[in-house]
Amino acid sequence: MVSWNNLDTLASYKELEDLGEKVDLVKVMSGESGAERVKNYTVPMAADMNYNYAAKAVNEDILNALQKLADEVGCTDKFAELYNGAVINTGEKRLVLHQLTRGQLGEDVIADGVNKRDFYVAQQEKIAEFAAKVHNGEITNAAGEKFNTVVQIGIGGSDLGPRAMYLALENWAKKNDTLKMEARFISNVDPDDAAAVLNTIDLAHSIFVLVSKSGTTLETLTNESFVKNALKEAGLDVSKHMIAVTSETSPLAKSSDYLAAFFMDDYIGGRFSSTSAVGGAVLSLAFGADVFARFLDGAASEDKLAVNKDIRQNPALLDALIGVYERNILGYGSTAVLPYSQALSRFPAHLQQADMESNGKSVNRFGEPVNYKTGPMIFGEPGTNGQHSFYQLLHQGTDIIPLQFIGFVDSQIGTDVVIQDSTSQQKLCANVAAQIVAFACGKDDENLNKKFDGGRPSSIIVGKQLTPESLGALLSHFENKIMFQGFIWNVNSFDQEGVQLGKVLAKRVLAHDTDGALKVYSDMFNI
Amino acid sequence: MVSWNNLDTLASYKELEDLGEKVDLVKVMSGESGAERVKNYTVPMAADMNYNYAAKAVNEDILNALQKLADEVGCTDKFAELYNGAVINTGEKRLVLHQLTRGQLGEDVIADGVNKRDFYVAQQEKIAEFAAKVHNGEITNAAGEKFNTVVQIGIGGSDLGPRAMYLALENWAKKNDTLKMEARFISNVDPDDAAAVLNTIDLAHSIFVLVSKSGTTLETLTNESFVKNALKEAGLDVSKHMIAVTSETSPLAKSSDYLAAFFMDDYIGGRFSSTSAVGGAVLSLAFGADVFARFLDGAASEDKLAVNKDIRQNPALLDALIGVYERNILGYGSTAVLPYSQALSRFPAHLQQADMESNGKSVNRFGEPVNYKTGPMIFGEPGTNGQHSFYQLLHQGTDIIPLQFIGFVDSQIGTDVVIQDSTSQQKLCANVAAQIVAFACGKDDENLNKKFDGGRPSSIIVGKQLTPESLGALLSHFENKIMFQGFIWNVNSFDQEGVQLGKVLAKRVLAHDTDGALKVYSDMFNI
Repeated sequence: MVSWNNLDTLASYKELEDLGEKVDLVKVMSGESGAERVKNYTVPMAADMNYNYAAKAVNEDILNALQKLADEVGCTDKFAELYNGAVINTGEKRLVLHQLTRGQLGEDVIADGVNKRDFYVAQQEKIAEFAAKVHNGEITNAAGEKFNTVVQIGIGGSDLGPRAMYLALENWAKKNDTLKMEARFISNVDPDDAAAVLNTIDLAHSIFVLVSKSGTTLETLTNESFVKNALKEAGLDVSKHMIAVTSETSPLAKSSDYLAAFFMDDYIGGRFSSTSAVGGAVLSLAFGADVFARFLDGAASEDKLAVNKDIRQNPALLDALIGVYERNILGYGSTAVLPYSQALSRFPAHLQQADMESNGKSVNRFGEPVNYKTGPMIFGEPGTNGQHSFYQLLHQGTDIIPLQFIGFVDSQIGTDVVIQDSTSQQKLCANVAAQIVAFACGKDDENLNKKFDGGRPSSIIVGKQLTPESLGALLSHFENKIMFQGFIWNVNSFDQEGVQLGKVLAKRVLAHDTDGALKVYSDMFNI
Repeated sequence: MVSWNNLDTLASYKELEDLGEKVDLVKVMSGESGAERVKNYTVPMAADMNYNYAAKAVNEDILNALQKLADEVGCTDKFAELYNGAVINTGEKRLVLHQLTRGQLGEDVIADGVNKRDFYVAQQEKIAEFAAKVHNGEITNAAGEKFNTVVQIGIGGSDLGPRAMYLALENWAKKNDTLKMEARFISNVDPDDAAAVLNTIDLAHSIFVLVSKSGTTLETLTNESFVKNALKEAGLDVSKHMIAVTSETSPLAKSSDYLAAFFMDDYIGGRFSSTSAVGGAVLSLAFGADVFARFLDGAASEDKLAVNKDIRQNPALLDALIGVYERNILGYGSTAVLPYSQALSRFPAHLQQADMESNGKSVNRFGEPVNYKTGPMIFGEPGTNGQHSFYQLLHQGTDIIPLQFIGFVDSQIGTDVVIQDSTSQQKLCANVAAQIVAFACGKDDENLNKKFDGGRPSSIIVGKQLTPESLGALLSHFENKIMFQGFIWNVNSFDQEGVQLGKVLAKRVLAHDTDGALKVYSDMFNI
């Protein structure tokens, strides 16, 4: 049996606090000892990737203390409870099954009278069949013409993850001749979002995927109407252009407005839904179901590593523990995610949701206040762009911000140019290698304006290439890191009560049921 | 004469610290007093906008103390020094003249033997003439065909600002029939960035704007070669497709490779260059020079407000002071920029650079270490998308993050749909109004998981519509806010020495001149 306790009640956490020892990154990362450290402080991941934490401010003593912490928390035991179907989401009294969409790590999970793995696989098969029919022209518009564009209508987890995954593989798919349809995304209730997308697509040959688990998300239903209006105005048959991804109990599931409906359920949170039908429909339509299956395989392989009790062989758990060490012992408030890959341009935005919405909590899983910091601020942009932007503060600002680099040996498209004896891809990789060392070791200078203190910790995930498999593994890594951090902080990472109040007040504004400050703000907008 | 002193040496700062008084936002924003506060705590901006700070944790005592601080720092006197041509950028010993690209706030500024206002205006006129010729078909490709796409090649300030401004006005321009050419952007040295853009444009009808002040930016020169290769492979005449924006002293200025060259100078930092030729060329080609001129007018009008010594009539200065109060007295480490406008999707990324690269410094303008926090972490995404993402942490996380909302009464395109008695635009506005109150006032609940503490400060800039004028005013507001904060923190906001070390080490990697950790990292990438 696992037990759930606040971080500050754990003996192993007190030991960690009492260690007192801090790692001097400048020292340990310099010279030959630095080289040894980079060789040793690395953990294999799935899909030909490695998680390297040499430039993190840890040493053997700290790692041993973190291992004890992981053991006392029972991180992998709690993970086992989760994948075996315990009610881990205590707030909403739900199982947490997103890993089950890509593999079976433990026992059969029976819920709502069905084997949930079978349920998720059945949805994937339904999607694969549907996508194949769209691709081969069995399913067409009313004029019998093939669709060429898929448009996802969803917000939050129904948007950020699928969008980030699509962008991550779009060029790879073009290069590998598996781009079946271009994908676009409508998310914001800002009418200019939908209008702009609709103005630039070939409406007659577009298929829309309406994604809302509850079937009641205001933004998504509004944008559905927006799209339906546009289809009608263009003289098109709405029912031929729209499919739904929703839960079986939602109003959408019963509607005859859709060409097809694919199901997710309450055991998959929006921010963890990229490997469910929420990502499956749009990605299978865009790239083909076999590419989506490879993405799932990558995630499943990475999930398997997360069951390992040895933190030195469990990259997600190790990453989680180092993050907690940085947040609670070293007192750092933010983390930057810095992929050296333009294809991962929206991956940080997805992680921003996945992480901040999961662990940005002030109460533990029993609803009691915690007396320690939980989830940090997450942000990031691709390198090298970020180097010419906010890296100034990262190098020389008054706060230390831990960094998470991601890099790949090969580009996706392969078109390149040699300038000054190196390719662009080599320049890209040289820059990320250089940054790690610059942040860790710094550089002295008599002119303090040109001095770099160093001591700024980073880790890097290095892969061969960003492919469906490595993307799946990356996604799994961060999902599991977030889950483990939730276990350590003893928060429920799977609800999001903090988004409710704004919704309630917005409804009051629209119903003109306001007074005080809210009324004056409403008046500013002529509502 | 102004005097430059560290913040913690100022009598007015000590007074501010000693005030001790903290504003209880829940209390002051509730009931009728809250309504009065929202009505009173507002400052007019240019272009029909207002800066409202009712939901910031200030009161009359604190505002008076902030006024004293502004006076003791000499914020507006320092601004006057700046726009009258003093060497404000002490690190690089340069004037700081970006405001002069859009108006003349003070005396004539003579540098390098020329009147700099005349110089900037002359460049604008050259660009306007060139753009008109492209639009009317006097300047064409070698086959005599009109160009339909403009592609900016630049990174950092040559990318983020112009890209954010383009996206901000693209739909407005389409709606108002002033979209002359679509714009695209190539920035990253990742070869997949350039390859992806080149794969999706009509190369034969594209004109490229190469932007590098120094003419030596590695990423930009590499991407230039990338583009030139593509043009040559397509059998196109390279010299017919490329213009340069650079300084007169750069190698690019003398090259015959370009159809035309437009100039900026060392007195305009990259991150402040949107209103210079850096933004001017691409925006004038995309929208027409008259739209760019309207954008400059908006910025110039807002600049004029920034000379006011009364902080209650100077929105940029007031915003700056409140930010310093939050950073140094209240101890908040980040700021979120949250535009309720999809068109401003990349505006936070631009501010992230503008702010963090300017004020992410640990030494003062004399190169001495400072003993207080300087620039915060800046991040943001458009609402309502963010509400379904990281707002959970903003509402219920263990850190308080000050918020900067932006909203507009009207959408840009105007296409809308009524669902449940309100338009999408009304829903969008209702949400931002609701969020301010939710963050400030919170909501009690017996279930602590559903409780909102409130007390989370925000301000909002409200405009009628996002137009060229209001966009210019917004940009000016934040540029001037950053400048004033630099004055208060006594840092040089106009250099960026923190970006140098990474460049130096990357060159060493590419030259195979590495040892220790750097060599092992390089080996990971097969360099």
